[in-house]
Amino acid sequence: MLSWMIISGLVNGEKESYCKYGKIKEVRMIQRYLGIDIGASSIKYGIGDSKQGLQYFASIRLQSKDRATFSRIFEDIFAEAADWDLAGIGIGSPGTISQPEAIIRGVNPNIPFLSGMSPKELVPAELDLPIFVDNDANLMTLAEAEYYKAESCMGVTVGSGIGSGMVLDGQIYHGSHGYAAELGHCNMVPGGESCSCGQHGCLEAYSSVDGIYRRLRAQGSLYANRLLPELIERRSDVNELDKIISEGEEVLIRALANLVIVMDPELIVLGGGGMELGLYNINRIREAVGHLLPQAHRETFRCELAGYGNRSGVMGGIILCERNLI
Amino acid sequence: MLSWMIISGLVNGEKESYCKYGKIKEVRMIQRYLGIDIGASSIKYGIGDSKQGLQYFASIRLQSKDRATFSRIFEDIFAEAADWDLAGIGIGSPGTISQPEAIIRGVNPNIPFLSGMSPKELVPAELDLPIFVDNDANLMTLAEAEYYKAESCMGVTVGSGIGSGMVLDGQIYHGSHGYAAELGHCNMVPGGESCSCGQHGCLEAYSSVDGIYRRLRAQGSLYANRLLPELIERRSDVNELDKIISEGEEVLIRALANLVIVMDPELIVLGGGGMELGLYNINRIREAVGHLLPQAHRETFRCELAGYGNRSGVMGGIILCERNLI
Repeated sequence: MLSWMIISGLVNGEKESYCKYGKIKEVRMIQRYLGIDIGASSIKYGIGDSKQGLQYFASIRLQSKDRATFSRIFEDIFAEAADWDLAGIGIGSPGTISQPEAIIRGVNPNIPFLSGMSPKELVPAELDLPIFVDNDANLMTLAEAEYYKAESCMGVTVGSGIGSGMVLDGQIYHGSHGYAAELGHCNMVPGGESCSCGQHGCLEAYSSVDGIYRRLRAQGSLYANRLLPELIERRSDVNELDKIISEGEEVLIRALANLVIVMDPELIVLGGGGMELGLYNINRIREAVGHLLPQAHRETFRCELAGYGNRSGVMGGIILCERNLI
Repeated sequence: MLSWMIISGLVNGEKESYCKYGKIKEVRMIQRYLGIDIGASSIKYGIGDSKQGLQYFASIRLQSKDRATFSRIFEDIFAEAADWDLAGIGIGSPGTISQPEAIIRGVNPNIPFLSGMSPKELVPAELDLPIFVDNDANLMTLAEAEYYKAESCMGVTVGSGIGSGMVLDGQIYHGSHGYAAELGHCNMVPGGESCSCGQHGCLEAYSSVDGIYRRLRAQGSLYANRLLPELIERRSDVNELDKIISEGEEVLIRALANLVIVMDPELIVLGGGGMELGLYNINRIREAVGHLLPQAHRETFRCELAGYGNRSGVMGGIILCERNLI
């Protein structure tokens, strides 16, 4: 308990703490892990382990998405983390990541410069720490599977894009080539809205926050420049908003139902900024997904909001790292 | 090699064989397994093991689908199999099967009497053999994964219904409650054609053989009473036929693409009577699925026809049994 209290002091940015014998400069008693969650709009990071949870958490809003900005942010994070005795780093990134090389493959529309490189390259070379990388939604799902004590869990994040991950038998499922769980690019509307991936009719083109803005812009809507909370608030009064958000929800519901029908998971967890702000309603989703399921699946279907909230990705990075090192 | 030759004699229905020392009445040297594949239009069965393959195969066309008929057929199969030294029985059945109880759950539209019972009940009680049951498409996929030496394989059968199975890391994936891989009941067309499962717009309602006939009947088509080979042959001349079969293929293509996007399998195998008769074209499917995939998935996507053909289900029953007993 003492070490926890001292470390709490460090968490608050104080490099010195006190115990009954006097001042303590640094505490390096327990090995901890750094989790970094690269998102389309922010980079979140935190320090902790699976037993004690997060002992530090911070978020940096992205002003630009070029490599130089990312490198600077990463340098700052590591400078800040230098006071901790880190045992390893777990990084979550959007995109399709080949395993075990951790190269981001294919188009990465939200952070284009990441395509073809590994997020490991963002870590200063002089830092001699083991680094593990996985898809951000995979890490969110790993954390949520631990949170809900589920052996089999599907995680879906509604944010700038639609992310998804699968945990089967307690392990992240990567598929045969590392490209599994790209739910956001399932074809939901034949010949539908164009998606940032180059295809048409993807789930992401309808149900992600960016997808909703893109559709509003295409209609020349005044709301295309407003913030998401305003869109959600004005939805009940403004037909064009309600129509586009309802369609986003309906397409998401069908995708979730199909995921349950194919995977029969113990649990589906919904997270991401969109869910946190209330873009879609979890109760409505639960009910509507249930209506689309065959009887046997309906009886066992369970859907929850992310227990770790917007810290799921960071926590997942920490758990990934810990699992690989212990 | 001798034992194989003698057994070949038995396979051909001869109960007596000859080797250089004279007549041999019965051969019980190698333990074998009986695989039974319950289909909507026939019951197929065979004897063999994974090393030597099928050494006997037969198919009984179903005239009626009541329990009494099934019991009689099963009795005949076991009477016929009495000459073999069977070590166990592996049964494949359509429907959602709870594991490990092997009870068929939910609606089973193609063979209604099976709902709520276990196919084990069809095996005469006096037969003291271990029995293993799994979904017919799961067993087809298990056999095909072995045929193509794939660790991860998705199998889809186009027949009276659409069956599907998943093999992950060499094992059948059942999901958390035994209800995984019900691809045929994925919602592909919102508010679309009604399906025998009670839902609307399922893959099965568009792409299965029964689905195609149901749509032809609904249009009052003369072709609703013709056999499938005639439908396939006349397709290029008859617009209504071409439209319905093309839509079935298009919906199947989208479902397969989404399966690849979510599961990233080593291989997809297509089987079932519809594929064997050429209802859909494997090359066209390969090409069209590829067009719907994100770049990374497109590069690794592989799709083949069932290597064991219409014997996949029986072979899968045999492999299931062997794996459980060895």
